Amino acid sequence: MTSFEFKPIAIVESCFKQKFAIPRQPGLVPESRGRIRFFPEFAVPEAVEGLEQSSHIWVQFVFHQTMLESWSSKVRPPRLGGNKKIGVFATRSTHRPNPIGLSVIKLDSIDLSEGVVLEVSSLDLLDQTPVLDIKPYLPYADRVNEATLGFAENAPSVLEVSFSEIAEYQMHELQNGHSLNLRNLITQVLQQDPRPAYQQVDPKREYGVELLNFNLKWRYVADSKSSSMPRVIVTALDQL
Amino acid sequence: MTSFEFKPIAIVESCFKQKFAIPRQPGLVPESRGRIRFFPEFAVPEAVEGLEQSSHIWVQFVFHQTMLESWSSKVRPPRLGGNKKIGVFATRSTHRPNPIGLSVIKLDSIDLSEGVVLEVSSLDLLDQTPVLDIKPYLPYADRVNEATLGFAENAPSVLEVSFSEIAEYQMHELQNGHSLNLRNLITQVLQQDPRPAYQQVDPKREYGVELLNFNLKWRYVADSKSSSMPRVIVTALDQL
Repeated sequence: MTSFEFKPIAIVESCFKQKFAIPRQPGLVPESRGRIRFFPEFAVPEAVEGLEQSSHIWVQFVFHQTMLESWSSKVRPPRLGGNKKIGVFATRSTHRPNPIGLSVIKLDSIDLSEGVVLEVSSLDLLDQTPVLDIKPYLPYADRVNEATLGFAENAPSVLEVSFSEIAEYQMHELQNGHSLNLRNLITQVLQQDPRPAYQQVDPKREYGVELLNFNLKWRYVADSKSSSMPRVIVTALDQL
Repeated sequence: MTSFEFKPIAIVESCFKQKFAIPRQPGLVPESRGRIRFFPEFAVPEAVEGLEQSSHIWVQFVFHQTMLESWSSKVRPPRLGGNKKIGVFATRSTHRPNPIGLSVIKLDSIDLSEGVVLEVSSLDLLDQTPVLDIKPYLPYADRVNEATLGFAENAPSVLEVSFSEIAEYQMHELQNGHSLNLRNLITQVLQQDPRPAYQQVDPKREYGVELLNFNLKWRYVADSKSSSMPRVIVTALDQL
C-alpha cells in the first residue's frame, strides 16, 4: 500500500526543552505548561469554535527527535524496569514504524489574539513538536472503565524529592518570571525518576536537563526507608 | 514546515462495508467484529509480544474514503442535530486537515497462525481502512475521570428497533455463517440512527446498507410514545 503524506497543522511550545526527563505519560506532571501554536495556513478561528467546551484534548503528533532512527520490533519500557523487552506495539515507545505520538492533555484556554493558540497543561510534549491533529476528548467513548493492562495498570510509584539550599535560593529568584509553580513542576518531573533504566545510586553523579529557561541539576541518594527507591536532591537551577 | 510521510502497517477487515451506518464512535456497537491484518513488512510476531495483556487498543488510521475531499473549518456534527455548525477541531469529523482517525477498540485475541492478525470488536472502522499505528490503552493515563465535554457528555440516546417477519426469517437463515449475533449487531447499529441529520419520518422511504455479507434494509415509523424519536423496523437482510 502507498504512503500517506501529512502536513503539521501546529507546533508545540513546551516547558520541556529536551527529551530527557520528559514525563513518560501526560497527566503525571499537572504543573507542566505549553502552547500549541497553529501554523498560519491552519490558524482559522472558526476551526476551533466549540473546542473551549472540551476540558481535555487529544494531540496526535510526530516524535520528531527520534523519527530518523529505525523502528525496533522489541523495546525495553521503563515500566518493566528497563531490562525486559516486549513488542513495540505493546508499548507507547517512540521507536515505532510510524513515529506518531498520542497524548491526552488539559486544554486551559484558547488564545485568538494572535492567530490560534491553545494554552495547555499536564503535558508530556517536547518543545517544537509538530502536531498533526487536535481532537476533543470524548468522555463517553474514550474513558473505558473496563479497560485493563497487565503490566502497567496504575501510575508508576514516585520518589521523594527535596531541594538543596542553593537550589531553594535559585528557585526563589527564578520564580518571578513564571506563572507556573516551579517547586511543583520540578517535584512532579523528578519524582517520576527520569533515568532511562534502573541504575545503581551514585551520589557523586549529577544529572541535568534544560527546563523552561534554566538548567535543572540533581543527584540521587539511597533512602533509608526504602531499599529499592532512592531519594532525589535538587542541587541547582542554573539560568540559561 | 515540511510534510511527513507514513506507510500503513496494517489493514482493517470489518463487518462495516460502507461509510453509511457505521457507528459514530467505537463502543456503541459491542457486537461488531473485525480483524487488523499487518502487512508482510510489519507482520513481525515479536512486535506484538505483550500486547495480549491489553484489553483495549488505540488504532490510529486514515479516513481513506474521505481523504481526497478538502477540509472544512466548520462541520455539522450529528450530536448537534446535524443543523448546527462548530469548528472541525471541536469534533471527530473526518473532514480534517490531516484525515487521521483515532479509535479505542476491544482486543479479543492475537492470531499468529498466518502473519500477524488482531481479532477486535466494538469497533467503528470501515472495511479496508489503512492503519498507521496500534498502541495499548493505558488506563491510568487515557482514562481521564475529570474530563468534560459540554455538548456530548454522554452516549447518544437510542431508538427502538424491531424486525419484520421477512427480516426475522432471513436473519435466521444467515445466522449460521457468522460467529457474532446478527440480531445484536443490527439492533446496535440501527438504534444509533445512522441518518446523516434529523429528517422527517417517511414510512415509505427504505434505507439500506451493506453489512457483512448482506444488504440490510429498514424503515422509520413514528413512535406513539415519543414525538421526537421514531422507531426502526428492519425490513430485510438480502444476501449479497
